[in-house]
Amino acid sequence: MKKHNFSAGPCILPEDVLKKASEAVLNFNGDNLSLLEISHRSKPFVDVMEKARSLALELLGLENKGYKALFLQGGASLEFLMVAYNLLQKKAAYLNTGTWADNAIKEAKAFGEVLVVGSSKDKGFNYIPKGYSIPEDVDYFHCTSNNTIVGTQMKTFPKTNVSLVCDMSSDIFSRQLDFEKFDLIYAGAQKNMGPAGTTLIIVKEEILGKVERHIPTMLDYQVHIDKDSMANTPSVFAVYVSMLTLQWLKDLGGIPFIEEVNNKKAALLYTEIDRNSLFKGVVAKEDRSTMNATFVLTDENLTATFDKMCKQAGINGIDGHRSVGGYRASMYNALPLYSVQVLVDVMQELERTI
Amino acid sequence: MKKHNFSAGPCILPEDVLKKASEAVLNFNGDNLSLLEISHRSKPFVDVMEKARSLALELLGLENKGYKALFLQGGASLEFLMVAYNLLQKKAAYLNTGTWADNAIKEAKAFGEVLVVGSSKDKGFNYIPKGYSIPEDVDYFHCTSNNTIVGTQMKTFPKTNVSLVCDMSSDIFSRQLDFEKFDLIYAGAQKNMGPAGTTLIIVKEEILGKVERHIPTMLDYQVHIDKDSMANTPSVFAVYVSMLTLQWLKDLGGIPFIEEVNNKKAALLYTEIDRNSLFKGVVAKEDRSTMNATFVLTDENLTATFDKMCKQAGINGIDGHRSVGGYRASMYNALPLYSVQVLVDVMQELERTI
Repeated sequence: MKKHNFSAGPCILPEDVLKKASEAVLNFNGDNLSLLEISHRSKPFVDVMEKARSLALELLGLENKGYKALFLQGGASLEFLMVAYNLLQKKAAYLNTGTWADNAIKEAKAFGEVLVVGSSKDKGFNYIPKGYSIPEDVDYFHCTSNNTIVGTQMKTFPKTNVSLVCDMSSDIFSRQLDFEKFDLIYAGAQKNMGPAGTTLIIVKEEILGKVERHIPTMLDYQVHIDKDSMANTPSVFAVYVSMLTLQWLKDLGGIPFIEEVNNKKAALLYTEIDRNSLFKGVVAKEDRSTMNATFVLTDENLTATFDKMCKQAGINGIDGHRSVGGYRASMYNALPLYSVQVLVDVMQELERTI
Repeated sequence: MKKHNFSAGPCILPEDVLKKASEAVLNFNGDNLSLLEISHRSKPFVDVMEKARSLALELLGLENKGYKALFLQGGASLEFLMVAYNLLQKKAAYLNTGTWADNAIKEAKAFGEVLVVGSSKDKGFNYIPKGYSIPEDVDYFHCTSNNTIVGTQMKTFPKTNVSLVCDMSSDIFSRQLDFEKFDLIYAGAQKNMGPAGTTLIIVKEEILGKVERHIPTMLDYQVHIDKDSMANTPSVFAVYVSMLTLQWLKDLGGIPFIEEVNNKKAALLYTEIDRNSLFKGVVAKEDRSTMNATFVLTDENLTATFDKMCKQAGINGIDGHRSVGGYRASMYNALPLYSVQVLVDVMQELERTI
């Protein structure tokens, strides 16, 4: 039985992408060689890397606007460090909306003054801080667009003259935003883009080169730009699967198309959470994430029954994050609307059963 | 036609490993989920990570001897930085045997005094420096066991009381060494271990914690040890394929078995290079690598003919590195002896033809 995969990440990828990826492990490009055993400097793979980078810019509407796309290693967690290394000269402003934002703040503190201009830590990050202001004299403002763990999402971004830096790991390519507002966007691949093992960085080149410190080679965005993401051997397979997934999204109609699907999925599930008295949402309604819906049972005694019904329906990966508990249904781009319907059906069945 | 893949890296992997990897992309562990779409904290993947780490220690004979094995991201190039960040307090000694050693030296210089105790840069790195001495007061001695680009290999390692740190990216698991002599070994996966996208680090835990500087989270070996290589999402697929490859090696008979095969392959090719007057080896005979054999045609006019004959025989990836030219036949663990015989046959056919 095909599973309905609500895993928070690494997460569901399009079936067609998985088929092509599986085939490439045996025979890539019709050359009778595995994708895993060819040189990263061979033309077939250089083409993959270039296509992945240009698709990323194209889907975000950032072509020919001074941005470069990079596919590096180390995950968003290494970007917490690289952002500070490359951009923090004296002072930066951060918005604390969850565990990952908190980690980004910790890394930055070793490089300069860090102003936390807003935080929802007081309430377990169950809302997005509003009404904060960003000083004009900071090097940049850093925020996290979607809190994967607790399930909040920034619906608007502050108007400011300083550089906007955003960790979009868990909602990039899921909704239309004015991406030109951002000077640097980064995202681990393993949500809407591909498998774990590569990180996309979109950076406006003009913001680089302004800090005075020595930047180690592998942490220097300019080095990776100059070497077309090939300063050393890239994560070949993860980049290839990311390219396939971006192509899949483009063929579907890009972000405008998938945003509509994502909104339908989120509306379907949140409507049921609000209607069904056996369930309760975890976060402030206006800040609910379209990617990660978190909820709890109003009667904990129903846990075993609900879990069993989910399992029987082929539902996978809806346990809440170990730091939060409850349930979390992640509805990334590749999750079909039908899978959400199956989950909603189980929630309604639970209501009828008890 | 199945190719004879002499690619320098990413390089040939065992056929059986590729089949299992391809299958896991569609259905991993019989769970009807792709390996790419499951949580890295799910039991099936945690088991993979633990098995990969324990196989690495077992094959090197380093179990229960105070060593930890890590699978991180960023390649050996990031290790150039991490080694210095974690170990260089005041002064370190480096041996310069090639491009990668040179890059490691450059990174370390930002962290303390770097003594280059020996170098073969004067002759394009075509030999391994000997007779150098290592001061007693350095924090560690760093060397590169195999020069992938030019084709030299350290046959012995210095006797010293200081910590030995070694980049074994291109010959780890290929030959028996007294691995206990080393306090830190690192290797990008994409030669004898797996696909690009993960790096193996073997570190004796007692050498850590001695530098006074702040170490960023993702560059801190101790953090990764404490988190069992899961401080953030690891490169799931690359770790899985590495685990399969290490298991393949263990099933064959481990390093003692493969070393014998590797010695046979190297002897077969170098004997032909020395016998056949149309070819000439590039590096000092006593320093020749068993992994990467470099050679040139004595008559450059034969290039087109030889290249065509290689292509017709299904030989792939023997172009020399773009910085060196000529030919480079890489004979990693997964390359069958038969493939080397095919290359030798072509070399002999060239001799008969002209």
